[in-house]
Amino acid sequence: MTSVTIFGSGNMGSAIDEVLTAGGATVDHIGSADPPGPVNGDIVILAVYHTAFRDIVDKYGDKLAGKIVVDIANPLDPETFDALVPAPHSSSAADLAAALPSSRVLKAFNTNLAPTLRAKQVGPNKTTVLVAGENADAKAALISAVQAGSLDALDVGPLARARELEALGFLQIKLAVTEQIDWTGGFTVVC
Amino acid sequence: MTSVTIFGSGNMGSAIDEVLTAGGATVDHIGSADPPGPVNGDIVILAVYHTAFRDIVDKYGDKLAGKIVVDIANPLDPETFDALVPAPHSSSAADLAAALPSSRVLKAFNTNLAPTLRAKQVGPNKTTVLVAGENADAKAALISAVQAGSLDALDVGPLARARELEALGFLQIKLAVTEQIDWTGGFTVVC
Repeated sequence: MTSVTIFGSGNMGSAIDEVLTAGGATVDHIGSADPPGPVNGDIVILAVYHTAFRDIVDKYGDKLAGKIVVDIANPLDPETFDALVPAPHSSSAADLAAALPSSRVLKAFNTNLAPTLRAKQVGPNKTTVLVAGENADAKAALISAVQAGSLDALDVGPLARARELEALGFLQIKLAVTEQIDWTGGFTVVC
Repeated sequence: MTSVTIFGSGNMGSAIDEVLTAGGATVDHIGSADPPGPVNGDIVILAVYHTAFRDIVDKYGDKLAGKIVVDIANPLDPETFDALVPAPHSSSAADLAAALPSSRVLKAFNTNLAPTLRAKQVGPNKTTVLVAGENADAKAALISAVQAGSLDALDVGPLARARELEALGFLQIKLAVTEQIDWTGGFTVVC
């Protein structure tokens, strides 16, 4: 059985929990106020603001070795809300992978607005989770867990594609904030 | 009546012609072998590889002053096909705007695969053209011409968003080339 630990239990953390639990995974959560303890999941999902990554790496880095670590962040500048924080050639996922060299880091879920994970639909389309990463087995494990939860999932390539996924997530948030799209809508992909 | 000049008459140039002509616009084309002549359109669409922009700016730059100039390029590195050519903080549209300071440069159509312009659908969704640029009147004119051709169009913000549109176009081409999506599908947006 797939075991998943989710850092955070906010809007995205709880929506991802619903999907993966529906697919038969065992899911637990770690909160920022929890005393350091074990990390149970083989798949670990960082459903927190990217600004909290450094703290998680410091506190839990050793325990994440060998695990699949999923970055779902849209690393917007919290001051301007009009730019991405990582260096323009990089991504928060690439930066996380550099900080966790013994983990298999994936980018996923950042292009999905939470209501579309819960509804399993974006308008007339089945919700699709886009996954990038270096390790094929890690991507296959996450994709399988997502598909078991009745969503589609697509391998979009190596971790370098996280840059494009973060651009897509950023654009989507800007469109929602400016009320060009609804938070129940957004980008989707037709295969 | 909207008048449009399209540089190029390839796959994208002809598909955009179909849309805008259906919407009642007068459309003509300029080819790379044509002797320099007038540029008739109030809206000028560069439906050519980004590598041809420099030549068009050199030959036609003065004639593009005051016009709406639309960059539809996905500026992939022609050697590797695995990276974008513009500086990572920039975009081909921003570079074009710098080269044509007297034109009103827009980014549009680069996230639409040609068959989805012709079919007016991406799967079950009406095809949506995403438009970025500084000038509100220019965006409104292009959006109006696209809507008249029975497609949807969305103003995604200032020309800075061309960076994200080019990331999205790049990701989409990679997915099509690797056969993760069909050329008749791709990304779409649900409002």
